[in-house]
Amino acid sequence: MTATRFEVKADPAMWAGLDMDVARFDKARQMLAEAYSTMYLAQSGRPEKMAYFDNMISGIFESRIREMLEVKKAGKPVVGTFCVYIPEEIVVAAGGVCVGLCGGSPGSIPDAEKILPRNICPMVKSAYGFKAGRICPYFQAVDFVYGETTCDAKKKTWEILDRLVPTYVMEIPQMKRERDRTLWLNEVHDFKAQVEEVSGRAIAAEDLAAAIRVINDKRRALQRLSRLRAADPAPISGKDALLIEQIAFYDEPVRFAAKVNELCDELEQRVRAKTGVAAQGAPRVMVAGTPMALPNWKVHNLLEAAGAVVVNEESCIGSRYFKDLIDENRAGLERQLEALTDRYMQIDCSCFTPNDERIDQVLQEYRDSGAQGILHYSLQFCHTYNIEEIRIREACEKEGIPYLSIETDYSPEDVGQLQTRIEAFLEQVSD
Amino acid sequence: MTATRFEVKADPAMWAGLDMDVARFDKARQMLAEAYSTMYLAQSGRPEKMAYFDNMISGIFESRIREMLEVKKAGKPVVGTFCVYIPEEIVVAAGGVCVGLCGGSPGSIPDAEKILPRNICPMVKSAYGFKAGRICPYFQAVDFVYGETTCDAKKKTWEILDRLVPTYVMEIPQMKRERDRTLWLNEVHDFKAQVEEVSGRAIAAEDLAAAIRVINDKRRALQRLSRLRAADPAPISGKDALLIEQIAFYDEPVRFAAKVNELCDELEQRVRAKTGVAAQGAPRVMVAGTPMALPNWKVHNLLEAAGAVVVNEESCIGSRYFKDLIDENRAGLERQLEALTDRYMQIDCSCFTPNDERIDQVLQEYRDSGAQGILHYSLQFCHTYNIEEIRIREACEKEGIPYLSIETDYSPEDVGQLQTRIEAFLEQVSD
Repeated sequence: MTATRFEVKADPAMWAGLDMDVARFDKARQMLAEAYSTMYLAQSGRPEKMAYFDNMISGIFESRIREMLEVKKAGKPVVGTFCVYIPEEIVVAAGGVCVGLCGGSPGSIPDAEKILPRNICPMVKSAYGFKAGRICPYFQAVDFVYGETTCDAKKKTWEILDRLVPTYVMEIPQMKRERDRTLWLNEVHDFKAQVEEVSGRAIAAEDLAAAIRVINDKRRALQRLSRLRAADPAPISGKDALLIEQIAFYDEPVRFAAKVNELCDELEQRVRAKTGVAAQGAPRVMVAGTPMALPNWKVHNLLEAAGAVVVNEESCIGSRYFKDLIDENRAGLERQLEALTDRYMQIDCSCFTPNDERIDQVLQEYRDSGAQGILHYSLQFCHTYNIEEIRIREACEKEGIPYLSIETDYSPEDVGQLQTRIEAFLEQVSD
Repeated sequence: MTATRFEVKADPAMWAGLDMDVARFDKARQMLAEAYSTMYLAQSGRPEKMAYFDNMISGIFESRIREMLEVKKAGKPVVGTFCVYIPEEIVVAAGGVCVGLCGGSPGSIPDAEKILPRNICPMVKSAYGFKAGRICPYFQAVDFVYGETTCDAKKKTWEILDRLVPTYVMEIPQMKRERDRTLWLNEVHDFKAQVEEVSGRAIAAEDLAAAIRVINDKRRALQRLSRLRAADPAPISGKDALLIEQIAFYDEPVRFAAKVNELCDELEQRVRAKTGVAAQGAPRVMVAGTPMALPNWKVHNLLEAAGAVVVNEESCIGSRYFKDLIDENRAGLERQLEALTDRYMQIDCSCFTPNDERIDQVLQEYRDSGAQGILHYSLQFCHTYNIEEIRIREACEKEGIPYLSIETDYSPEDVGQLQTRIEAFLEQVSD
């Protein structure tokens, strides 16, 4: 990886077969390679086992797509998502692939703004634009997109997206009482029926039990990685950890968990040897808030370029994805679906009201990660996180936790201003 | 009303008793009187029976508040709302008052922006600011605020508002299947229990039957007014009709219905005599979209100042409030609550997905009102209406309906720009 030029691999013939805008996409591929080289490969002191994840980026539009297409050719479902509120175990039980779709780049936003309002969340616009512009091979390869009702912008955009790709919408409740759990259990049943219809075969209890273990193992591996970041000096950069959390949404789960565990073995040695990516005592920051979809590395890059190390992501692409496991000891499909429901109802997304458990969770992760300050990250126009931010801010004030809240989009325009604010924040963290 | 100076009446002693910021509120009162004189009383050819509604504005902060306080003193509930998705029949059955709270003025927004994000809907900010600044006597007089989960901004703001005034939140489903109806029926039961707890007495089936008739009568009166606006020349201005739709949210419902019917008697004579507020053939515009809370008269004022007449409001403060009635023939509380649920589940709010019935409804109202063009009105950052606007626009294109979409807030800053766009739109309407 070191001396040779990094490449995000191309397969124009496969892309053309997926009805992509190949010429345009090829430029995006080259830009990704460049950004990755600058932001990732230029880091010093990276763990050796990051090579696997570098390779996953290299093959993101090529080998991984080929794997997915093989699954599809075998009659198994390939489902695209934008949310952790999908019972992916059901897709895996059907032998299928659940993949987080593209939505982290400013490049596709103009495609979306041809039809969508400008002042909605950049992730929603970017995602829609990737499909509209035919510049995301994952979008082109899925059997259907899984949509949900976690926010206004997504809920209403699915209606428009459905014209371009079949979009199946699950209703996420807005509270967490027994009647909400009942609603969602019914939705889980429906989703299972939908996956069975696409794959043309029924899911057996053994399939689902195995899938629950597979995804639990993946979540356990990510939990282990998260715990190791609590060491000082931090054995891995926040950028690398974020990358792994992002890759968790498109890699094959069994292989991914094994590779994360191999990395964790190396990180354990580093912790014992006190080998870090930053000096001991470097300012430790936790990031809380809205998800950072690949290749959105903007804020982590700014924080770590300024000398901090990011030690935790309290986010859907982060701890919210892996903190809760599913009970593996329930027998029979009905009880397994209930176990799924119970686990998913624990998600502390800001779409819920009230959502007090998230405030507690942020403080818990702050303590567990040995952070010294919290940066709250909101995507622009994300009403639920932006308003819930008030309560996070107040909790930090009460606990005396250094705190910075930023609201931003994917454009590079505010980088200078953010840099200034982040530097001032880090001075406060170091005090 | 003609020669004497119009006054919005004051009662500083009563306001002080409601813990208001009296000095500041008194200025707001005077500004309302001025705006009303300019925008309303200066209109020519108004129906004589508008005198009652002028009087309701005159007493908005005085006699009507006094009436509400008397209800409250008698141990009956006073409930403040921001949504048509409240089963107000239950409040009326308990002898109480259901009142739409202040949320239509830019004056209170700076109070809200001390804590809330700037880039959320002006109605939500204005409403929160009225409470935070103690400058809305309705807010100060209520037993509790009724909140709902129709949009992200409101849902999460209720959590913050609840610190200032008890805020009871009902979960509104996001789809309209049987399981959603079940969820909402349970919510209706809970709301009844809440109202009974506040008023300290159970609601009987006879009370609820009477309340259903009262609110149906009010909705029927508004339907009648709406039908009369279909005449050309229009017998009443859009501004006056909007005012009546706004007053519907705070007036006593029996009296209000009687006064609307008296006005309709006069309008029927006008229609027969072909007496209009604008010349026959004046451009007829329907306004569709987000609600215009009192005193938000900005767009109607611009349209009618430019020579058009507004003939319909497809909005929550408009037809969405009164188009559906409740079945009066169901016996017993359980069946009455089901009838309520059935009626409320017909509301075609953009919070639902899909919401195809709204597209049909807009076209239906366009035809029924004899409109010649549709202006779609979105409050800034209202994601559900802004995205659903795409489908309204497409439907208008398909039907060849002249169409203008605007997104605006409460500030006067964009008035010049809107005026230009509206004038260009009216040329298209007149073609």
